[in-house]
Amino acid sequence: MEKYKVAIQGWQGANHDIAARAYFNGGEVEIEPCLTFYELFDKVGNDQNGLLGMVAIENTLVGSLLSNYTLLKNSGLSVLGEHKLRIRHQLMALPGQTIADIKEVHSHPMALAQCEQFFREYPHIRLIESEDTALSAKLIQEGKIKGVAAIASSLAAKLYNLEIIAKDIETNKHNYTRFLVVGKPNQSEFSKMLEQNLINKSSIVFSVPHEEGSLSKVLTILAFYRINLSKIQSLPIVGQEWQYLMYIDIDFNDYQRYLQSLDAIRPLCEQLSVLGEYRAADTLYVTNGDAVVKKADVEN
Amino acid sequence: MEKYKVAIQGWQGANHDIAARAYFNGGEVEIEPCLTFYELFDKVGNDQNGLLGMVAIENTLVGSLLSNYTLLKNSGLSVLGEHKLRIRHQLMALPGQTIADIKEVHSHPMALAQCEQFFREYPHIRLIESEDTALSAKLIQEGKIKGVAAIASSLAAKLYNLEIIAKDIETNKHNYTRFLVVGKPNQSEFSKMLEQNLINKSSIVFSVPHEEGSLSKVLTILAFYRINLSKIQSLPIVGQEWQYLMYIDIDFNDYQRYLQSLDAIRPLCEQLSVLGEYRAADTLYVTNGDAVVKKADVEN
Repeated sequence: MEKYKVAIQGWQGANHDIAARAYFNGGEVEIEPCLTFYELFDKVGNDQNGLLGMVAIENTLVGSLLSNYTLLKNSGLSVLGEHKLRIRHQLMALPGQTIADIKEVHSHPMALAQCEQFFREYPHIRLIESEDTALSAKLIQEGKIKGVAAIASSLAAKLYNLEIIAKDIETNKHNYTRFLVVGKPNQSEFSKMLEQNLINKSSIVFSVPHEEGSLSKVLTILAFYRINLSKIQSLPIVGQEWQYLMYIDIDFNDYQRYLQSLDAIRPLCEQLSVLGEYRAADTLYVTNGDAVVKKADVEN
Repeated sequence: MEKYKVAIQGWQGANHDIAARAYFNGGEVEIEPCLTFYELFDKVGNDQNGLLGMVAIENTLVGSLLSNYTLLKNSGLSVLGEHKLRIRHQLMALPGQTIADIKEVHSHPMALAQCEQFFREYPHIRLIESEDTALSAKLIQEGKIKGVAAIASSLAAKLYNLEIIAKDIETNKHNYTRFLVVGKPNQSEFSKMLEQNLINKSSIVFSVPHEEGSLSKVLTILAFYRINLSKIQSLPIVGQEWQYLMYIDIDFNDYQRYLQSLDAIRPLCEQLSVLGEYRAADTLYVTNGDAVVKKADVEN
């Protein structure tokens, strides 16, 4: 069984942990918790032993995590893969309690906000913001704290021996997060994927001259090469007011054709760089020993 | 002198207030403070007396305020103008004190973060997060609180009779925010601007079918019509995973040509709507009685 050491933002049992285990489906995953995304990129960048990172990049309810685009670009690390995860929230506490026993619920502000509707029926419960979903679960277990519940994942309930007292309490079920696997480029792994024709997505970043139609020209060339844009995001360039870096995700079937399209747009771009070439999550296959087996499209 | 009632997020003296006064340069501005952007859009939407709103939409250090795009789209309000403001932070306290007297500094978390470097030299000072920059200044004045300073604007110092004890303490000077003026479309004002050939920018939003090259086609048509893209932002459509609404700012010289270009892209877009047609800030002229006078490009 292959072993992976993966840095995540948050504690064991957080959604980043679930995403890492799901991505490396079948492999043994050791989690390295980080307090911030900044710390994560720093650790992975300075590691010499193949440490990878799992980084949320967009959520279907709140949009892109813009600061992670900037951290990724500045880190010099590569995108090696992606994973899409349906986000579910569970209410958990020390075993033997019911919701009537709960006076306080601790969790990350985002998780609290996403379960707001559920708690309208329980006005006696105080909602308290914490640093991390899984950490809130961990602290309840460590302190043997009764009367307090956490909002976290099923994995966190399992890891910290808590009982789920209300299941799937998120208000909006259309809650998905897309994660990127980041690390130093692994050439041998990349060559293997390329050989097996598995590379079909790329994340690139560039800026265009401040001229009429300059972005359109670049996108038109990509279209002529039958390269599809799946996402486009502009972020301001610090120090050059109202000029932007364009972060673009592109899909393709023919890797050679994709390389040719990059050559074709390069003269029209400034600072073009490839953040990573990888297999799109929706079409992800994982190697299981020698065979290649299809993976579930999106976790449910 | 013309009078404007403008809802802002924050208190009198906040950066939104400065932006409103600068935009309505020469007019009398009455500020309506709101706790949140949600409250602001709600108030302006329900008002029957010409209330306008001033809304930050992007900052050169942190990028777009994505949630404000969604609030704007859902509000049904129009973008009537824009203003770009250089953000400066001042340290202020009750008169007669020096920085050695200050034990605590209160301000909005973003302002505290943007002045972090300055405070490294003063490890005895505790930084305390508050709801609003200007509100922190106001509370010091109202409570006559010594030993506590606020980070806020020069305008806040003036409004709340505080003394600036350290000037321009922001770490990064490339800190600009772009604000949108929002309100119900004022047809007579719009016609006047159109007649004077002042309309040269538009913000539109649309989605494109999930097909190869669909976005490129739309942007190519805009380029053929000599319509320039100044900004592009994609935001996920809730309930349609990994499909996006495209928010695009476009510049043009010929209003008729711009209308023709919209007609040309409409059949290729889904849910195309115009968020507003207005005068770009960099080229902003203001009417001063009968004459039209040029306004400073970007406030300094």
